[in-house]
Amino acid sequence: MTYCVAMHVADGLVFICDSRTNAGIDQISTFRKLFVFSVPGERLIVLQTAGNLATSQSVVNLLEQRSRGSGTHLLNVATLYDATVLVAETLREVVARDRSKLTAQIDLSASFMVGGQIAGSPMGIYNVYAQGNFFQATQDTPFLQLGESKYGRPILDRNLTYHTPLDEAVRCGLISFDSTIRSNLSVGMPLDLLVYGKDSCTAREPVRIHHDDPYYSQIRKQWGDGLKNLLAELTPPPRDFMAQ
Amino acid sequence: MTYCVAMHVADGLVFICDSRTNAGIDQISTFRKLFVFSVPGERLIVLQTAGNLATSQSVVNLLEQRSRGSGTHLLNVATLYDATVLVAETLREVVARDRSKLTAQIDLSASFMVGGQIAGSPMGIYNVYAQGNFFQATQDTPFLQLGESKYGRPILDRNLTYHTPLDEAVRCGLISFDSTIRSNLSVGMPLDLLVYGKDSCTAREPVRIHHDDPYYSQIRKQWGDGLKNLLAELTPPPRDFMAQ
Repeated sequence: MTYCVAMHVADGLVFICDSRTNAGIDQISTFRKLFVFSVPGERLIVLQTAGNLATSQSVVNLLEQRSRGSGTHLLNVATLYDATVLVAETLREVVARDRSKLTAQIDLSASFMVGGQIAGSPMGIYNVYAQGNFFQATQDTPFLQLGESKYGRPILDRNLTYHTPLDEAVRCGLISFDSTIRSNLSVGMPLDLLVYGKDSCTAREPVRIHHDDPYYSQIRKQWGDGLKNLLAELTPPPRDFMAQ
Repeated sequence: MTYCVAMHVADGLVFICDSRTNAGIDQISTFRKLFVFSVPGERLIVLQTAGNLATSQSVVNLLEQRSRGSGTHLLNVATLYDATVLVAETLREVVARDRSKLTAQIDLSASFMVGGQIAGSPMGIYNVYAQGNFFQATQDTPFLQLGESKYGRPILDRNLTYHTPLDEAVRCGLISFDSTIRSNLSVGMPLDLLVYGKDSCTAREPVRIHHDDPYYSQIRKQWGDGLKNLLAELTPPPRDFMAQ
């Protein structure tokens, strides 16, 4: 499994991915699921992936190879929409290529999120389905998820809006990952985090957050302790709710 | 969909069910999913159900009809384990009966939780799979869930232990339902709640909690506001996590 979140708030974008892949519960590895295509100051395009690792790696490899050639590629498309079309077409191409040679029933599907900004046009994040069609997050629903989305969703549903400050969005996202990792073994550390500031068309390298990262450990503890206190401080149930 | 929780803590048992059934998103109804078989002071057996409504209703009807006759039934079995075997056998009986007459591919499966206490033996809660085999909650994992379990699970994983006081278990359960209902339309109010005090072999009638219940509204608000504050008070991310 996988868990990836992309957030689009007023001040920027936040991308977080786990790094666990598994083929059965007894074959677990660490693979990066966050990829950056960038011309600093002109464009930043971030890809996040879930699903079949062979498929998603091939898609990313082809996109990277081609971005060093002529023709249309991620470093020269005019808009983020066109970048997403390109990711979707490459996904369909890889699945069609590998499916035609299959000798066993194997699920080759993968899905992607594409986000970022190209100078002169607005920021955005898109969710590309395994079938290659896609949709964009809006101010009403300022986040997208891939993979094991349910455990970590309530904190996003309750707290993330388009007007959430960027640093609070990061905290909210990391807590969403903590909740997911506690409940599903197939989502695992380390995490890759990339925060993008609106209109910069540039970003730092993604930050890799390991399980013993001091900041992550600190907010996990603050959150866990805080929830415990919050629960203990809720008004006790009325007498007629309780046992005789 | 459905969401049901059963908790087994040191001081007693807590059972909560939602009441929404749906056949497609455009056909939504309210049906009780919590059923009580009781001989006050001698036994209390609680059933919670999920899955095909025709199947689960038939199982409950047969169990009720038979408990007024002679033979082995829920009001005379010697142990809670035997009660669970009886529920499982009745489930298999109904599915076999209806499946043999099916003229279309329909999923008849249903699952159950069985909990309670019979005087002279310990309390317990069991989870009966659609296939009729079952397992029991233990002190290590003091809760069971049916149906849409993921959204509401982190709060239970983080906070519920065997030694959680009964009233805190109720609060924890209601918050778990609130998180689920916010994120999944197919789980809906009202809720049915039954709290059982250890060794009483007796319980109040289940409490029906409507969406405007004053207590439920109060703790939802306390929880929502508390989470918002907690998130805002987490240490801000270090500078190298953030955008340039």
